[in-house]
Amino acid sequence: MNQFFNDKETIVTDAIDGLVASSGGRLARLDGYPHIKVVVRTDWDKSKVALVSGGGSGHEPAHGGYVGDGMLAAAVCGDIFASPSLEAVLAGILAVTGDAGCLLIVKNYTGDRLNFGLAAERARALGLKVEVVIVDDDVALPELPQQRGLAGTLFVHKIAGALAEAGKNLDVVADAARSVIAHTHTIGMSLDTCTVPGSPKEDRIAAGHAELGLGIHGEAGVEQIAFSNARDAMAQVVEKLSMSVGQGSLVALLNNLGGATDLEMAVLAKELLNSSLSSRISYLIGPAAMMTSLDMRGFSVSVLELDGGQLELLNAASSPTAWPGLSAIQSAPPVPMPDGLTPVRPPASENPERRARVEACCQIMIAAEADLNGLDAKSGDGDTGSTLSGAARALLSSLDQLPFADDSALFRAIGLELSQTMGGSSGVLLAIFFAAAGDASASGKPTLSALKAGLDRVQEIGGAEVGDRTMIDALHPALDALKSGLQAAAIAARAGADETAKIVQAKAGRATYVSAENLAGHNDPGAEAVARLFEQLV
Amino acid sequence: MNQFFNDKETIVTDAIDGLVASSGGRLARLDGYPHIKVVVRTDWDKSKVALVSGGGSGHEPAHGGYVGDGMLAAAVCGDIFASPSLEAVLAGILAVTGDAGCLLIVKNYTGDRLNFGLAAERARALGLKVEVVIVDDDVALPELPQQRGLAGTLFVHKIAGALAEAGKNLDVVADAARSVIAHTHTIGMSLDTCTVPGSPKEDRIAAGHAELGLGIHGEAGVEQIAFSNARDAMAQVVEKLSMSVGQGSLVALLNNLGGATDLEMAVLAKELLNSSLSSRISYLIGPAAMMTSLDMRGFSVSVLELDGGQLELLNAASSPTAWPGLSAIQSAPPVPMPDGLTPVRPPASENPERRARVEACCQIMIAAEADLNGLDAKSGDGDTGSTLSGAARALLSSLDQLPFADDSALFRAIGLELSQTMGGSSGVLLAIFFAAAGDASASGKPTLSALKAGLDRVQEIGGAEVGDRTMIDALHPALDALKSGLQAAAIAARAGADETAKIVQAKAGRATYVSAENLAGHNDPGAEAVARLFEQLV
Repeated sequence: MNQFFNDKETIVTDAIDGLVASSGGRLARLDGYPHIKVVVRTDWDKSKVALVSGGGSGHEPAHGGYVGDGMLAAAVCGDIFASPSLEAVLAGILAVTGDAGCLLIVKNYTGDRLNFGLAAERARALGLKVEVVIVDDDVALPELPQQRGLAGTLFVHKIAGALAEAGKNLDVVADAARSVIAHTHTIGMSLDTCTVPGSPKEDRIAAGHAELGLGIHGEAGVEQIAFSNARDAMAQVVEKLSMSVGQGSLVALLNNLGGATDLEMAVLAKELLNSSLSSRISYLIGPAAMMTSLDMRGFSVSVLELDGGQLELLNAASSPTAWPGLSAIQSAPPVPMPDGLTPVRPPASENPERRARVEACCQIMIAAEADLNGLDAKSGDGDTGSTLSGAARALLSSLDQLPFADDSALFRAIGLELSQTMGGSSGVLLAIFFAAAGDASASGKPTLSALKAGLDRVQEIGGAEVGDRTMIDALHPALDALKSGLQAAAIAARAGADETAKIVQAKAGRATYVSAENLAGHNDPGAEAVARLFEQLV
Repeated sequence: MNQFFNDKETIVTDAIDGLVASSGGRLARLDGYPHIKVVVRTDWDKSKVALVSGGGSGHEPAHGGYVGDGMLAAAVCGDIFASPSLEAVLAGILAVTGDAGCLLIVKNYTGDRLNFGLAAERARALGLKVEVVIVDDDVALPELPQQRGLAGTLFVHKIAGALAEAGKNLDVVADAARSVIAHTHTIGMSLDTCTVPGSPKEDRIAAGHAELGLGIHGEAGVEQIAFSNARDAMAQVVEKLSMSVGQGSLVALLNNLGGATDLEMAVLAKELLNSSLSSRISYLIGPAAMMTSLDMRGFSVSVLELDGGQLELLNAASSPTAWPGLSAIQSAPPVPMPDGLTPVRPPASENPERRARVEACCQIMIAAEADLNGLDAKSGDGDTGSTLSGAARALLSSLDQLPFADDSALFRAIGLELSQTMGGSSGVLLAIFFAAAGDASASGKPTLSALKAGLDRVQEIGGAEVGDRTMIDALHPALDALKSGLQAAAIAARAGADETAKIVQAKAGRATYVSAENLAGHNDPGAEAVARLFEQLV
């Protein structure tokens, strides 16, 4: 599969460069490319305990995205899914560690343990205070003595980071980190494997299946299960978690493993908060991509058994934008629907002249049905005549309900009628025309100005100009001419309509998709309808 | 492809429920499911201009993710890639609009224009002040009169939102929105199509190709181009943008269309900030998924031609977490590498007894090479003997450089030597053993305690306990017994080593992957090495 990178060898350094360049000056890197890939804070003065984490790349935004005020002082990045070297880790430690010492937060993978572990020794030999904590939050196989480190690492970054930022000493910070680790549990599920840049994708998970109990390096989950839907998937994840989790209130962290859409993650958030653990989940972090496995279409849920002080630390201000923050679970009930959705029909009223005029317009449209359909067949699906005559018939049948005594109310009522009985874009646009004309009329404009206001609104919403081969080509000149009388309007409308037969490249509406030879010589059916209306009203 | 949803019919309402539930009480929905899908702020008092946007779903975090303080008052959501209905838009408007009025921010798609446009008329007929702006930032085909609305919409949400929040009136807010739209340009590129839930995926883009000039509804881009790498891809996007963009300083918005990894997006950020437009880009928003097309593996770049006042508005505080904020482009130079990476070798010094002891240990390991390899062949790759004897030979050759006069320095020096000459996990763990013993010795502990401190550290980092079938099984009892003399230690080490032959389920190290029948009756080679060491030192 194609991917957006330049060279497999430089993908991680390129990505770090991009992270640093888009950090607003908050981040820098150590000058040790390509072997040493370490992201550091630019505002770090070593006066407090330094948190250093890292591991293989491919878990973005981890780990570089968590460098900053209130979280990590440095992130040591390896190549994709590969531990950074001893030298890289040591460089990270030495770059950020002062008298207050350093806490290494290491996910439980052999390479990371060994390289971070030996780097810690080397740093200690140089007189630095270094503590190491190993995150092993995976519960995929609870009986295994060596659990993997997964997205629960975020709890450690945040809580230990907030304590360090608050000036606590290394023992306090490290003890808090260990306590978090002991009370954090994670499990993930995926519908597909991830794509390692430059390598063919392993097709391991068949359609209709999912893997439960995944690591974050593309390794197989501990079991393949049948996948039915998001609800069942979350239930299975929560069931596994429930076997490990202790009593009390929980903070849940819903992590996108990289390739699930935000739409899917929101569905999963609903299911998590409706799951059998929901009554115990007091706070949620995410859904967000926090500890990914490249583009894996999966998610993980981490839970932290909460003790009192941690909440404040989780909520403490911090600058890394990759940290999505914490939301208290509180249900906002649906807001009642507003009034006004059902249109209020004005009381019917009489004005024989106006009623006759409306009736005449309707009859003109009905009479033109076949001709307009014929014209539309040249440029569309041949239904302009049927659409207009259908609307006209509906309008005729509602004449007794219309408020003929009041121009403004009449325009609005016709707009409403058209919006409910006339299909397609043209129905909406005509409804907009009459509704806007009604508004303008209600605000005191004379009828002609009100109609022009309606036209303006149609052009604003429909986006068509004169010359675009639409009904505007006839309606616009007709309304312009109407101040000189209906006869002048009719002449202008006809001229405009006939002009459309020469427009062979439509710029709005469906005719934009029709070839020139099909359009040439045929009037636009909407413009033709307008022309006939004015001509026959004369 | 499998996806995390329950039912195609409820995917959008489920996702909105998830969004609301994970919003910490900031968001609610209107009680109009399933037809009316509107997300509103719970803290909205209608005292200011209300911004309402929306459109089809599938663009998450748009639009619900932008509801909140400083951005939208309501988001009206349609089904996936389908405009919301007139009634839904009207419900959204009515739910949040007070005397200050309402600005509808509509992306330029026919369905959205018509439904938002007619809803605006209906709201106006009810006496509400409503302005509509149409976002048309696409530059894929600059000659087309009708450009699509894309991720540049975010600039409108943020700038108009900040003005509304500041209490500006509707005219000011709408004019500012129109000015932003006139100066915003967007183009996207993708390597793959998106997967519409419940529909088969269209395989339109061949390997080695990309589509340039995409909408956000899965429609084809205006051209297919050859794809080589991230640098060229960004250059092509920037070239298209450059044809439309005016003079002056730019804010760039780097949007993930949904399926690109954070790793790829960071590479693309680097390329954008090194592109031919880079000197003009003063600020960057993202990279982040802001206006997606489900899981499309692509990105878009939007640029806003900046005028003075907009910057403050883009930076104004706002609560929607989907807004990634703005970063000034400022290059932090690489930080010089720290001192201390190159280990300082202590000066050589003499202590004949210690030198003889080290030499003896090395000879014992060299003599055991074949036997240990043989044992290791039962559980691993048969190289334990070679690894240990190789390290022993290297140590022998460096005897003249070792600081024999000082226990602490000697332990550390041996650790350093082993870390540089002995491969594999065992080399790192033995290096940790000696380095930690050196530390402990330097801090004043007697030799036996120092060695035990080394063992503790090896167990912490390696994670192995007694009984896990590792060298710990011999080393741990030997150090415990060493206070009674070397003879006692040797007996304990041998007993421990022989015990490993009965452990048929290894719990740490590579033997965890080996079947019981291959392990039974054979000592662990690491434990056997320790036993031989003590036995032969006696």
